[in-house]
Amino acid sequence: MKKIACLLFATLLLLSSRAWAQNKPFSPSEFHGATADKKSYKVVYQLNSDDDKTIKATLKNIMNALEDPRLKGKLKAELVVHGGGVAVFKKTNPYESQLKALQAKGVILAECENTLRERNISKDELFDFISFVPSGNGEIIIRQQQGWAVVHP
Amino acid sequence: MKKIACLLFATLLLLSSRAWAQNKPFSPSEFHGATADKKSYKVVYQLNSDDDKTIKATLKNIMNALEDPRLKGKLKAELVVHGGGVAVFKKTNPYESQLKALQAKGVILAECENTLRERNISKDELFDFISFVPSGNGEIIIRQQQGWAVVHP
Amino acid sequence: MKKIACLLFATLLLLSSRAWAQNKPFSPSEFHGATADKKSYKVVYQLNSDDDKTIKATLKNIMNALEDPRLKGKLKAELVVHGGGVAVFKKTNPYESQLKALQAKGVILAECENTLRERNISKDELFDFISFVPSGNGEIIIRQQQGWAVVHP
Repeated sequence: MKKIACLLFATLLLLSSRAWAQNKPFSPSEFHGATADKKSYKVVYQLNSDDDKTIKATLKNIMNALEDPRLKGKLKAELVVHGGGVAVFKKTNPYESQLKALQAKGVILAECENTLRERNISKDELFDFISFVPSGNGEIIIRQQQGWAVVHP
Repeated sequence: MKKIACLLFATLLLLSSRAWAQNKPFSPSEFHGATADKKSYKVVYQLNSDDDKTIKATLKNIMNALEDPRLKGKLKAELVVHGGGVAVFKKTNPYESQLKALQAKGVILAECENTLRERNISKDELFDFISFVPSGNGEIIIRQQQGWAVVHP
Repeated sequence: MKKIACLLFATLLLLSSRAWAQNKPFSPSEFHGATADKKSYKVVYQLNSDDDKTIKATLKNIMNALEDPRLKGKLKAELVVHGGGVAVFKKTNPYESQLKALQAKGVILAECENTLRERNISKDELFDFISFVPSGNGEIIIRQQQGWAVVHP
């Protein structure tokens, strides 16, 4: 009986401490940024532009997040590409080494199949180490509803 | 007594299985995309540009998400328009049929009232089948905190 | 015994009512926007552009969200600046009064330290009332995983 009460109390404590942590006030004289107290983090990066500057910034942003001292070794990332963003996966474009560096750190590289249909692009035109999803938009939505963060650089 | 222990155990199991599902490792030789295992999904689309290409891409993106085989019949969407995005709702612009097609699929079409005040736009200038929210930014924030995903194409 | 059953029932009710609230259907003849029924809201604004129009729109958007009648007095906001967005914090640029007005309303002003390193910008070049985070991308990810909403104007 006491055991159950104990377990129940612990569960409630856990749930409420979680809520409390999210409402902690900010002290003006301290570090104001976020503290990473979870064991693992997940993020989807959206890329839908063929602009070289935006593509490079997106790839660099993912690497910066993976290297953030607060997230190092704790972050799972996925790059979801749709629309004009497909440029990043074209064999004729110069992003292969950066993509492989990200993949080596566990980043999922996902291309939207709707985009390929709409733009008449064959999978042969793209790097063979990427993966595909039915729609980039659906992927971003499902991931978020599974608890992943989203960044659109 | 046993019943309570059982219920308690089930609750904890539910909570922990949820946590586990979010940390499942990815196998390199399989489909890497997300699997939709929830009964319903919700997403807010943000549109704050008057660029015709961006407007068309946003409307098409929403339709693609609604048609994603993983989400079909399970996705509730809302288009939140603010700033320059108000162009999509102007009677003089050519987006009526696309908007009505989305509305027929349950998409909420919401215009920011702050934008109308700031730009001296009367509601009469906009399609009469849309709805209004006090601020587009507030709408996006509240929806996310209620558990909706957000996409900004 | 009855007390425990009661507590357990209340916990389950709380969890399930939460789930139910998120799946409520929308009535076509009513206000379709979101209703703010939580006591507090949190949002991260991402700024990574040096375009004056985008900077001004972002600052105005934050103020609009803080003033939304549904969120007034209940919203905690943070402006996370990275990449080209660093322009908003430069002493030589004209955003000081708008930033101070936001800070007076509790908005955290956070600059990405990666950006400073990559662009050889000294902290002396920036307003002295801002704060710093190891990476802007990490900050956005951690905040979201702590339950904050995110807006990228």
